Amino acid sequence: MNRKSHAPGDDHGVSDVGFKNLTPISEALRIVFSNLPNKATAVEKVPVSSALGRILSEDVISEVNIPSFEKSTKDGFAVIAEDTHGATPRSPVFLRAVGAVQIGTIPEVRVARGEAVSIVTGGNMPKGANAVVMVEDTRRGEEGTVQILDEVSAAENVTRIGEDVKKGSTILRRGTRLLPQDVGMLTCMGLGQVAVISKLRVGVLSTGTELQSQPVDSLGKIPDVNRPTLISALRELGCEPIDLGIVADDYDQIHSRLEQGIKTVDIMLVTAGTSVGPADLVPKAINSLAKPGMLVHGVAMRPAMPTGLAVVDGKPIVSLPGFPVSAYVAFLELVQPLVAYLLGIDLLPRPAVKAKLSSRVTGAHGFRTYLRVHVTLSDEGYIAEPVKASSSAILSSLVHANGFVIIPEDIGGYEDGQEVDVELFRPPERRQAAP
Amino acid sequence: MNRKSHAPGDDHGVSDVGFKNLTPISEALRIVFSNLPNKATAVEKVPVSSALGRILSEDVISEVNIPSFEKSTKDGFAVIAEDTHGATPRSPVFLRAVGAVQIGTIPEVRVARGEAVSIVTGGNMPKGANAVVMVEDTRRGEEGTVQILDEVSAAENVTRIGEDVKKGSTILRRGTRLLPQDVGMLTCMGLGQVAVISKLRVGVLSTGTELQSQPVDSLGKIPDVNRPTLISALRELGCEPIDLGIVADDYDQIHSRLEQGIKTVDIMLVTAGTSVGPADLVPKAINSLAKPGMLVHGVAMRPAMPTGLAVVDGKPIVSLPGFPVSAYVAFLELVQPLVAYLLGIDLLPRPAVKAKLSSRVTGAHGFRTYLRVHVTLSDEGYIAEPVKASSSAILSSLVHANGFVIIPEDIGGYEDGQEVDVELFRPPERRQAAP
Repeated sequence: MNRKSHAPGDDHGVSDVGFKNLTPISEALRIVFSNLPNKATAVEKVPVSSALGRILSEDVISEVNIPSFEKSTKDGFAVIAEDTHGATPRSPVFLRAVGAVQIGTIPEVRVARGEAVSIVTGGNMPKGANAVVMVEDTRRGEEGTVQILDEVSAAENVTRIGEDVKKGSTILRRGTRLLPQDVGMLTCMGLGQVAVISKLRVGVLSTGTELQSQPVDSLGKIPDVNRPTLISALRELGCEPIDLGIVADDYDQIHSRLEQGIKTVDIMLVTAGTSVGPADLVPKAINSLAKPGMLVHGVAMRPAMPTGLAVVDGKPIVSLPGFPVSAYVAFLELVQPLVAYLLGIDLLPRPAVKAKLSSRVTGAHGFRTYLRVHVTLSDEGYIAEPVKASSSAILSSLVHANGFVIIPEDIGGYEDGQEVDVELFRPPERRQAAP
Repeated sequence: MNRKSHAPGDDHGVSDVGFKNLTPISEALRIVFSNLPNKATAVEKVPVSSALGRILSEDVISEVNIPSFEKSTKDGFAVIAEDTHGATPRSPVFLRAVGAVQIGTIPEVRVARGEAVSIVTGGNMPKGANAVVMVEDTRRGEEGTVQILDEVSAAENVTRIGEDVKKGSTILRRGTRLLPQDVGMLTCMGLGQVAVISKLRVGVLSTGTELQSQPVDSLGKIPDVNRPTLISALRELGCEPIDLGIVADDYDQIHSRLEQGIKTVDIMLVTAGTSVGPADLVPKAINSLAKPGMLVHGVAMRPAMPTGLAVVDGKPIVSLPGFPVSAYVAFLELVQPLVAYLLGIDLLPRPAVKAKLSSRVTGAHGFRTYLRVHVTLSDEGYIAEPVKASSSAILSSLVHANGFVIIPEDIGGYEDGQEVDVELFRPPERRQAAP
């Protein structure tokens, strides 16, 4: 084989020749963002019990104090703090035990100077008392007395009204992705429903005369891998995928499917036909729809270099390469940030580990290179082994990998044994040491 | 206030006095695992289109070759490699252009020595040809000829039959959590359904006479925060939560609810009543059910120290503290690994960043301390600010935090300005520099 087939990352099915201006990823996103007139605006109310993972469309302000009454944070005795001053195990203070707080009730008992009332964690503080002595710092005395072995300050071991949440305070801000503890908090605040940003509707269209949905029953046809992959990835991201099917490599059909599709979605993803060959009709079809059309065509990344980014009718269209590995990497690096931008949220960083490379790897000058690796954890620590198949036509390379090593634009590569950051999408494989 | 209320992490509503043997987290898990007779065994078939996130219950072996025919990976000309030897731009090789491969069809054209057939990426290789010359390395010649400007080797720019997936090879292993690319791959292999481990059924029972489901309409009652939080956390983890409701602090009622509940679930979570006070009836009720009962009571962590771990009828019961922050931290550190163990999977590490602490923090000797922090990203990098409320009764501390700083058992604390690892559960807040 000659030099070309060994050029690192040269695995996108097209050469760079037709792409005169390759745009770095961050610049590509900046260009698209600045051409989007609006962020996502559709909102809906959902029950709090099914709000997990949704994005708040407005600040949540509490209409209640939490707790709504003073509570003990300890098992012990509710007292007047002043009564305990100077108490030690050697010179305890003796208080009259005048009753017990029943949890889950409003206590009728009242604490006066020289008195103590038994209370459990979470119990409602009886009137008069201002602190709780832990049971471990007390001793049962004789004839209805309790010995206090340590002093407490006012408010000690007591949760004040509104200490957790103050009535009128902002608890959760617009743009928050709701976590389990947030669902708990909203429930605690007595909310039945909450206003969230509607899920983004993302159209997924595959182009390619050779494609067929399963089962593939025509000779020469192949299954469409990109739609099921992208539809799953969109679900994982909390979007509503809209399956727009397969269209042949025919300009009129692509044009008409895009034109109809863009009306019904917030974002359009279209795979294949994005390069500069005669069958690459997607960019032309996009440009014919409306201004500004294609804003970026060719991104300085490998794989997924031929990716195009467009805005039509104020909505983004991402023209993804047809090779499955390219389409998925472009999804991660361009579509995910685009979704986050429209929702007005930030993304969590990906889980990562430091690992030693099991062999030398090369990047490509001016390109951000996404190297698929398989990370194992052994007695020697994390080892990252590049997955052999380098072509982005080879989907199994993404199935066998558990992480990416990202080689920046200005780095030629990494040496055998060098420690690198690996972004993990599966857990590292644990390998037992040889006996 | 005296020393006690400032003891770091002393926020679990009970003192350590009643807990004589605190077990480190890893040891607690080891003890429970070694008392579980079986891992999860129930399996079911699900459509591949809804298999995202599910765990494979058996290896997936391909019954097909992918691709099923030889394909071009470039736009160009299908040729016999030997015909191109010695070709350069200055001394091109001239071949007869004898047709074109229509994508998505079985080509009828055949390539003989001295001939070339035009082909696009993904096109089915015509008989006779064994390599593809990229279009950029060709020039249209006159009268049905094409000039080849660079030589190619046999198999160059061609994907072989089975190069992605070989018939009979194992593509995905038992225990794999299915990612979007796996759904794509299974679709590509022509599978309609896939065998997965049934979702673990996890019972969630709250104990506490003071608790009421929303709306809270009785004086002295408080809303139950733990059930909605844990139910959401279980959903996020891919389990099937079973809401077992609220039971009062009554031994017989707790016993009977646990006895009935454990028959219908794979794991039981029960909150509150797990300490050593008079109202702490859960451990006793668990021990009365069946052997071995409570295996661990008191874990060397803060918050969540009073957590108990039991096995009854071969199923784990986790007795979680009632304070919401404690219950949630115990869920993350004990229930998640337990679910992973029963499913036979590993967990991904949590996303993390290095951040500078905005103030000194203290741990507690012998305890693993989970410090809630709020991380911001400014020009100075990541700054982690401890969330003020230290009590684990204060749920808002988990709502306002975006990460944990974990202080190991043998570390006293960290200094103001020290760089620490923060495990993030929300994205860092981006803060603009002052103008």
